[in-house]
Amino acid sequence: MYKCIMSTTEAYSAAVRVMKRCDILAQISSEKEEGITRLYLSPEQLRANICVGEWMKSAGMTVWQDTVGNICGRYESLLPGAPALLLGSHLDTVRNAGRYDGILGVLSAIEIVQWLYDHQKYLRVAIEVVGFGDEEGTRFGITFLGSHGITGTWKDEWINYTDVDNITVKQAMQNAGLDAKKIKEAERKTTDIIAYLELHIEQGPCLEQEGLALGVVTAINGARRLDCHFNGEAGHAGTVPMIHRNDALVAAAEWVVFIERTTSKMNQKLVATVGKINCFPGAANVIPGKVNLTLDIRGPQDNAIDYLLSILLAKAENIALKRKLKFRQIEYYRMPVTHCDAPLQQILNQVIENIQGSTIQIPSGAGHDAIAIAERWPVGMLFIRNYRGISHHPTEMVQTDDVSLGIKAYLQAVYNLSTKLD
Amino acid sequence: MYKCIMSTTEAYSAAVRVMKRCDILAQISSEKEEGITRLYLSPEQLRANICVGEWMKSAGMTVWQDTVGNICGRYESLLPGAPALLLGSHLDTVRNAGRYDGILGVLSAIEIVQWLYDHQKYLRVAIEVVGFGDEEGTRFGITFLGSHGITGTWKDEWINYTDVDNITVKQAMQNAGLDAKKIKEAERKTTDIIAYLELHIEQGPCLEQEGLALGVVTAINGARRLDCHFNGEAGHAGTVPMIHRNDALVAAAEWVVFIERTTSKMNQKLVATVGKINCFPGAANVIPGKVNLTLDIRGPQDNAIDYLLSILLAKAENIALKRKLKFRQIEYYRMPVTHCDAPLQQILNQVIENIQGSTIQIPSGAGHDAIAIAERWPVGMLFIRNYRGISHHPTEMVQTDDVSLGIKAYLQAVYNLSTKLD
Repeated sequence: MYKCIMSTTEAYSAAVRVMKRCDILAQISSEKEEGITRLYLSPEQLRANICVGEWMKSAGMTVWQDTVGNICGRYESLLPGAPALLLGSHLDTVRNAGRYDGILGVLSAIEIVQWLYDHQKYLRVAIEVVGFGDEEGTRFGITFLGSHGITGTWKDEWINYTDVDNITVKQAMQNAGLDAKKIKEAERKTTDIIAYLELHIEQGPCLEQEGLALGVVTAINGARRLDCHFNGEAGHAGTVPMIHRNDALVAAAEWVVFIERTTSKMNQKLVATVGKINCFPGAANVIPGKVNLTLDIRGPQDNAIDYLLSILLAKAENIALKRKLKFRQIEYYRMPVTHCDAPLQQILNQVIENIQGSTIQIPSGAGHDAIAIAERWPVGMLFIRNYRGISHHPTEMVQTDDVSLGIKAYLQAVYNLSTKLD
Repeated sequence: MYKCIMSTTEAYSAAVRVMKRCDILAQISSEKEEGITRLYLSPEQLRANICVGEWMKSAGMTVWQDTVGNICGRYESLLPGAPALLLGSHLDTVRNAGRYDGILGVLSAIEIVQWLYDHQKYLRVAIEVVGFGDEEGTRFGITFLGSHGITGTWKDEWINYTDVDNITVKQAMQNAGLDAKKIKEAERKTTDIIAYLELHIEQGPCLEQEGLALGVVTAINGARRLDCHFNGEAGHAGTVPMIHRNDALVAAAEWVVFIERTTSKMNQKLVATVGKINCFPGAANVIPGKVNLTLDIRGPQDNAIDYLLSILLAKAENIALKRKLKFRQIEYYRMPVTHCDAPLQQILNQVIENIQGSTIQIPSGAGHDAIAIAERWPVGMLFIRNYRGISHHPTEMVQTDDVSLGIKAYLQAVYNLSTKLD
């Protein structure tokens, strides 16, 4: 047991300010609805950047907006020009979003620097805070555009992707006062940054069920997404006897039930979801001849995901064979597991155990900026409990007390890490 | 064994003419696609009526179009003004239809009269042939508008129903040169007609599987149709563990599998179909919170249908309870079983046994004009084998040989019935 450098009172004040700022940013939305909609390269994003940039300056940072639209701040080290520990998260949202996903991580990171600045403490590393302009991929259908700017792994073709209004990334950049030719300038040298540490709401129910405010992320789950099709034969719902049917929907239903049962049995950390289903011709009085459905599988270990996937696909083939239908599938999305850095996990575990008496290691089911950043630097993540795990929804909610513990742990982890570097 | 009044050669010639006329009527379609689309009160229906009316005249009938748009012909009895035996079927189609559903029955009925006229035979009853203007309900969503005109059971509100272009039945009648105020004039007195006899393609695979060209309909299946809803909770497909989900789609899938298994086990003449399913929000990466689906149940006995329905609904409630979801349903369509007249069935069975060596009694899974006509008169139906039971599709197909047997049996049944009345 050691004493945290931030007092409980300080942490609570910081949390109150963070909650207030979350409310302020929640006003910056392109839609009039209850939730927030703030898309990449939109006027709302630029306004949020200005707002966050001001708060960074108040915390003693030098501030710039990089060439892909991330808002960045730097708090110098004892040794000017030293490599930085990068903190942050994203400021963009899905449509009709809550006010904490991403945003809480950026504002908490500013509080770390604010405390250091208020106490005129300088560490052996610089602290940089980033508010990524795009994590969700809501506008252009490509995720992590902000963090890929910093890793320098933007793909050339991305500037030609379009939004619903047919505006390209390139044009949107121009409209936002950016220049697609300068995207590469956002890239940071590998030696500029030593690690990335992100605080985020859990977006799931695990912490709440364990009765804990904070947890350490072990890995960001890998994911596979497939488009699947059962092709049988349509027919008159009144005239074709049950035994002569090749009903594509019953086949799909049998598979959906199998997917749930098998995934539940295998491992509680694997999840599989059929989120979309369409049947054709789709009339009450016609036997479905064709069904399209999606399969989404995620888990903290790539080999376990692939093993589950192979079992599920074998079953689909088997159902199709038995029912005289055809099954085909195409995997259209594959994200390998992102492992959080073990030493960073250790630091976070120690800090959290010290603060809340016990720690918990959980995989992240949702994707995060850390996925892109991990292409180049070690990443660590700290989760904060959120109400019923509800996220991507206006009712997304966190408790000020939990945020207070989160900021305390976040600062302590940063401090311990910098001390370790001595 | 008795000798049929129609020779095999005569029957074959009649069948060839019927097939040719089916091809001619197939050209009268509102769409350019392969299949036929001929809707109630459309210019195409009026053209088909004119064409069929000419054929009726050639067969020695007096012809009129009634006030709801049915084309009607009468071949007098030995005793002028005697009640009539009504033969026929419908001339309208579903969208992109085949060329035999309904049409074959009208054209075969004309051949019965043609034979009598060619042989200058007059029976103790008049023969009337009707080509109903609406059986499918494709245009206005109400079925049997043609036959309900004759039974006099048109509902007042029907004239205000609209098609996809927002044209009311009333307006469509006016456009077709009819007057909605005169609908009641289409009604026939109960004493005008002694019975209704219809020939129709099976629209199912039973006759083909039995290797028989003809069969006798015992009943037109009753039907129930329900809109059903499972309400669970939507969630992030990556963050909510399997055990904490209230996935509405898995619940629906479990039910769909149960519906098939239970219906198959109960009785091969009961059928149940889920033809439509929609899940919400309907994204690959979101757990479905809500699923809407339809249930269609049919069978030849109302009590068996209702018993099956009660078992299925109890299971749905049970699944919902077990999975902590809500299930609700609303029955939006209920058609009781229509029983074919026993004496008419007997006549048809004798005739068919005589012609093809054996007979078969089958329920009709699809609805027919006889459902409406049965509200007032005894009905009998004769089925003709169709290729793989495919109907409501451009590939709908019958064999000339089968049509030939069908016409022979149809005429013989009419003749035997009239003799029996002596």
